[in-house]
Amino acid sequence: MLAGLSDGGMTPAENWFAARDAVRAGDRFGAFVHVPEFPPADYAEMGPLNAERPLAGLPVAVKDLFDTADMPTAYGSASYAGHRPVRDAAIVAELRALGAFVLGKTATTEFATWPPTTSVNPHDPTHTPGGSSAGSAIAVAAGLAPVALGTQTLGSVIRPASYCGVVGFKPSFGRLSRAGIKPLADSLDTVGLFARSVTDVELVYRALVPGPDRAYPLTGRLGFLRGPYWGEADTDAQVAMESGVARLRAAGLVVEDVHWPELAEASKLCRRVHDYELGRNLFADWRDWGHLIHPSLREGIAHARTLPPEQHAEAMLGLEDLRRRFRALFLSYDAIICLAATGQAPRGLESTGNSIMNAGWTALHVPCLTLPTLAGRDGLPIGMQLVAHRYEEHRLFAVGALIERCLAGIGNS
Amino acid sequence: MLAGLSDGGMTPAENWFAARDAVRAGDRFGAFVHVPEFPPADYAEMGPLNAERPLAGLPVAVKDLFDTADMPTAYGSASYAGHRPVRDAAIVAELRALGAFVLGKTATTEFATWPPTTSVNPHDPTHTPGGSSAGSAIAVAAGLAPVALGTQTLGSVIRPASYCGVVGFKPSFGRLSRAGIKPLADSLDTVGLFARSVTDVELVYRALVPGPDRAYPLTGRLGFLRGPYWGEADTDAQVAMESGVARLRAAGLVVEDVHWPELAEASKLCRRVHDYELGRNLFADWRDWGHLIHPSLREGIAHARTLPPEQHAEAMLGLEDLRRRFRALFLSYDAIICLAATGQAPRGLESTGNSIMNAGWTALHVPCLTLPTLAGRDGLPIGMQLVAHRYEEHRLFAVGALIERCLAGIGNS
Repeated sequence: MLAGLSDGGMTPAENWFAARDAVRAGDRFGAFVHVPEFPPADYAEMGPLNAERPLAGLPVAVKDLFDTADMPTAYGSASYAGHRPVRDAAIVAELRALGAFVLGKTATTEFATWPPTTSVNPHDPTHTPGGSSAGSAIAVAAGLAPVALGTQTLGSVIRPASYCGVVGFKPSFGRLSRAGIKPLADSLDTVGLFARSVTDVELVYRALVPGPDRAYPLTGRLGFLRGPYWGEADTDAQVAMESGVARLRAAGLVVEDVHWPELAEASKLCRRVHDYELGRNLFADWRDWGHLIHPSLREGIAHARTLPPEQHAEAMLGLEDLRRRFRALFLSYDAIICLAATGQAPRGLESTGNSIMNAGWTALHVPCLTLPTLAGRDGLPIGMQLVAHRYEEHRLFAVGALIERCLAGIGNS
Repeated sequence: MLAGLSDGGMTPAENWFAARDAVRAGDRFGAFVHVPEFPPADYAEMGPLNAERPLAGLPVAVKDLFDTADMPTAYGSASYAGHRPVRDAAIVAELRALGAFVLGKTATTEFATWPPTTSVNPHDPTHTPGGSSAGSAIAVAAGLAPVALGTQTLGSVIRPASYCGVVGFKPSFGRLSRAGIKPLADSLDTVGLFARSVTDVELVYRALVPGPDRAYPLTGRLGFLRGPYWGEADTDAQVAMESGVARLRAAGLVVEDVHWPELAEASKLCRRVHDYELGRNLFADWRDWGHLIHPSLREGIAHARTLPPEQHAEAMLGLEDLRRRFRALFLSYDAIICLAATGQAPRGLESTGNSIMNAGWTALHVPCLTLPTLAGRDGLPIGMQLVAHRYEEHRLFAVGALIERCLAGIGNS
């Protein structure tokens, strides 16, 4: 049972309408771009809540970068206004098969790139919610959806989760199917999840990627990586992170400083791969519908078309080497902890913020989890990011839950 | 100017109708599943042939796995009959921008998997043309198109090229954009080309992936890899390949036997990745439209859904290690040469043949080129496959052209 989600004796119909009506009444932040009028066609088959299907009755907010056969899908772009795909994205179909339903489609930046959405941060509407998965982060933060789907190519799950104060999860590259999402940079594009707690994220992820129920004996040792971009973090974020580490130590965890300067190289190469592939993958949109694409993105694609293929090739090989080197490091720690963003959500809506704390990890293809445990100078949330080795998702959940407990315990004491 | 393609003083309109009429009159092998009635909407902009656009006037046959906004796209599946995408695949848009036009859509096995197409081998209609890019290989072999687009996930470009007696080219993984193709196993899916000569393939590839005009000084040394699956090749194919090697030596090339038993591991892990990802990526089709999917594929997807994610994760890491090890090997050779298929096209149309000579290379993400230089017991073609290191496409073209010249010279002497 997902935290905060109760069947309350409701029928599937009551459950569906209750969730939809809550969105209609409560979406003051522009989380959703489409909420259906009626239950889905297979609604009669939804069966009793909490029956044999592990996600029965679960409302999921879906970033409008995922195809949905029964709802419009515009990828955040005026050039796809009213577009209706013929199939669900694979993961949408999987969630439906597990008993969940699509609560609605959430705001994404255009093609998951940089031009901002019109949505706002639910903690302070004068601040950005982040991007590109803005609407999904907001939907969970505002209590409209217990779970939401997003994608991360640079920092588009972890950053908005940090800004909006929810748990964000980016599994290892390739772990959740990307069939039916609009490709941006397909060496990086990764499907991720938003929820209110590690337990909720884990429940949904385990339903999607069933694995053996392993016990993950933790050592209680964490590596604290300020990282090569620590100097770009806001002072209040640095202070909050140091204080979070102190609280973890006070709770009995061993937290040791670690260093990995090559993360900067991963981040640089990530950017290069992103820019090159974006120019390739969005070409048909740019060529045939460019007049409907945001001018800044249109220029970005035109610039990307000038980048030399050799640089992309070198970056791809360089990243493969970095992935291998990272695999051999930090093996004595349960996870690496670091800032999820350079600070609280920036004021203003003209930028979705800085992905520098995420891009390197995305390109390393490692799982990342952010916990809303820190706060910035205005009281806005900042995430503590946990990073594990590739395919160590279950270990990451165990560490995440441990940290949640530790910090809650300290908070209460 | 592509070999065999001449403007002959034709206007763009004459050129377009001539190519279309040739297909209508000549497609006796089931290469095409759709040929348009009228020129494309942007036809007026096509401009004079052989003008500033490097592929001006070039007809390209496009595997029906690529989206085309002005033609139906069914991905070889009855479940998508009449489907019309809203955008071109990125590479289709790129070809059009370079001046080429889409001659028509070619037959693909369902979702680029194993149930055969109804098309036949142009050298003998009682033999398979191979798969999955059957129609594209046939279109070039039958002289209906100078160039065709295909995709390879296991062996779907190199194998049908070998069976149909044309040049087949699979560049490094990720080199040509996959945006707008139906994903099968996206850790493997690679866009490739068919043409009548190495020069033609190179011309189109260089237009798509512009790079510096490097001179590739060749050493004239080749590594001959019989490989771990030599024993699965037909005897006549073994004899043809040994004889091809002897002809290369007679032409003055140094061809040395090389061994790499780990190719078998790459092949095994490729299969594992393929099967797992197929079950994930085709889930929406299987769940919602399974009744229209070939029963054998339907069962294959159902089986794939039972495969443990851990095995996929191990295979992904194992392949990354193998890729790195391969990068350090065979550096003194211009290319590795090996059989492109286990033999000539098998008799019968119930199977598209064996991809064992291709899957390992696909999973290693290295560029492969097959040349129609060998023949089997019935006189049907067999390809000699050249393999280079990742992103060494241009070197591969240079070696391929050298081998073409060597064997032509010997053949004429």
